[in-house]
Amino acid sequence: MKTITLNEAAKSLSQNDDILVLMHKSPDGDAIGCAYGLCMALRKLGKKAMPVCSDTVSEKYDYITSKLPIQSFEGKYIVTVDLADTRLFGEKLEKYKDCVDLCIDHHGSNTGYARESVVDGASGACAQIVYKIIRLMNVDIDRDIANAIFTGICTDTGCFKYSNASAESYRMAAELIDEGAESTFINRIMFDTKSRARIEIECLALQTTEFYADGKIAVICITNEMRRQSGADDYDTEGISGIPRQIEGVKIGITVNERESGKFKISARSAGDVDVSSLCAVFGGGGHKAAAGCVIEGDLESAKKKIVGAAEKVLTGKI
Amino acid sequence: MKTITLNEAAKSLSQNDDILVLMHKSPDGDAIGCAYGLCMALRKLGKKAMPVCSDTVSEKYDYITSKLPIQSFEGKYIVTVDLADTRLFGEKLEKYKDCVDLCIDHHGSNTGYARESVVDGASGACAQIVYKIIRLMNVDIDRDIANAIFTGICTDTGCFKYSNASAESYRMAAELIDEGAESTFINRIMFDTKSRARIEIECLALQTTEFYADGKIAVICITNEMRRQSGADDYDTEGISGIPRQIEGVKIGITVNERESGKFKISARSAGDVDVSSLCAVFGGGGHKAAAGCVIEGDLESAKKKIVGAAEKVLTGKI
Repeated sequence: MKTITLNEAAKSLSQNDDILVLMHKSPDGDAIGCAYGLCMALRKLGKKAMPVCSDTVSEKYDYITSKLPIQSFEGKYIVTVDLADTRLFGEKLEKYKDCVDLCIDHHGSNTGYARESVVDGASGACAQIVYKIIRLMNVDIDRDIANAIFTGICTDTGCFKYSNASAESYRMAAELIDEGAESTFINRIMFDTKSRARIEIECLALQTTEFYADGKIAVICITNEMRRQSGADDYDTEGISGIPRQIEGVKIGITVNERESGKFKISARSAGDVDVSSLCAVFGGGGHKAAAGCVIEGDLESAKKKIVGAAEKVLTGKI
Repeated sequence: MKTITLNEAAKSLSQNDDILVLMHKSPDGDAIGCAYGLCMALRKLGKKAMPVCSDTVSEKYDYITSKLPIQSFEGKYIVTVDLADTRLFGEKLEKYKDCVDLCIDHHGSNTGYARESVVDGASGACAQIVYKIIRLMNVDIDRDIANAIFTGICTDTGCFKYSNASAESYRMAAELIDEGAESTFINRIMFDTKSRARIEIECLALQTTEFYADGKIAVICITNEMRRQSGADDYDTEGISGIPRQIEGVKIGITVNERESGKFKISARSAGDVDVSSLCAVFGGGGHKAAAGCVIEGDLESAKKKIVGAAEKVLTGKI
């Protein structure tokens, strides 16, 4: 593995053709924005370029994906974006594990699997790095490229709300709007649209809110009965686990999500001041300091009791 | 009323002293950010300056308000910010109705009550105009001013999500972060923290959701009974009016908010594609294209019927 500069990455891309840009499995807005934005830019330089992924891209990104007609060719230069580890390639991309030419990433934890890498852990979104490289390739940035890159930045920074949203993130967003990015439309799709089923299940889940440890722990439940009643699917419940932590005074927000009979998926969230990954590790799970998960078997009440008991210990420093 | 330029406004402010900066009743983040940010800047020029409001400023803005020690003086130059109409002065500020020297506002509907006015209806937040004026006064912008102005911009643009968030909004946010604005902290307080009472009343309000016009209109209600039940105050219900519009397929989101007996405050929201200010104008109200309000008297059902009837006409182009 060799670390290269943004300029060198731009040069490598400019000197190659028949480029495949790999995304991680379950691709999110940043992965999609980077891969499609980069391919659009490379095509503007007359090259063949195509994003590839083990999973299907959600329809909500149609405004990006529909702007890049499919090209079929044998990949000669393999690039990855927003991809920290070959374990995230997924089945379809397995075959590229040992032949990645260039990796563009913003995960400090990047395993260095590529021949050449540009990794900037301080970058809020990988799309910010891709944007810099596209500029260095002297591509005339159009609305579609701007939309793709803006999507990467706004989704990975939680609509500029997370701590990774820097002055650079905001400044690039401004430039991208000048270049045609439809920021209002994109933010609305990504952050401001809820299905009726989502509103309904959110409401049902919120009605189950219980507080423990003097209000420092909040727990909500999502049951299969609520799914039936609201018609909500997994896509509708995305992000609900962030709600209990938002309640004033709450240090640990817990969501107990009923899955197949007898199994409860637990999501724990903190503001980063309490380590919930150690909480979930008690039950064989894990994650980040501010967001972690585990699975507990049993019935709803006993699952709740177990996770709350452990959470109380985390708060008092016993775990 | 005389319309003046940003430069002239900066000059007027520079040439005067003992300045009172008036906020509208029930002050929001933009009003507070503008008033406090401007007063901080004026004090840096050695002037006496104090924000005034008919209502108390919520504690969640302590990080702004605590940075401006109270000054007591007889106001000699009266300024209003983010204040479209003297009807929004509230009781305590009544006495200033006919003696406002300078109005700085971003409501196109501004009634022109001041001797001199700078109104830019294209500005996402009034704080963007105030920021320009502060810069023109050659004030060295510090962290506290940056925090105040950033708060105005992020709250009025819904964390940069609404259609009024322009490239300028993002660019100024970037500059303010460079100048010390604690964007992550502010965004967390403003958009990622909910009181228990808020969670409860949001849930109660969502249970009242009704759809009209093939799902293009969604209406929710907030009643005094819900306030009693949840213990929610006006601050707790702030922003709830944004929810009905978020529902998939909804063009006009309406919140019917019961006030004193027999009066209903209506908030209407669109994604900017439908003009809700003309909808509210039917009932003597107004606002922006994407966010407007009015008051309807009567009982809940008749208020709902009236606003929905008018909203249906707006959708079919009859209003």
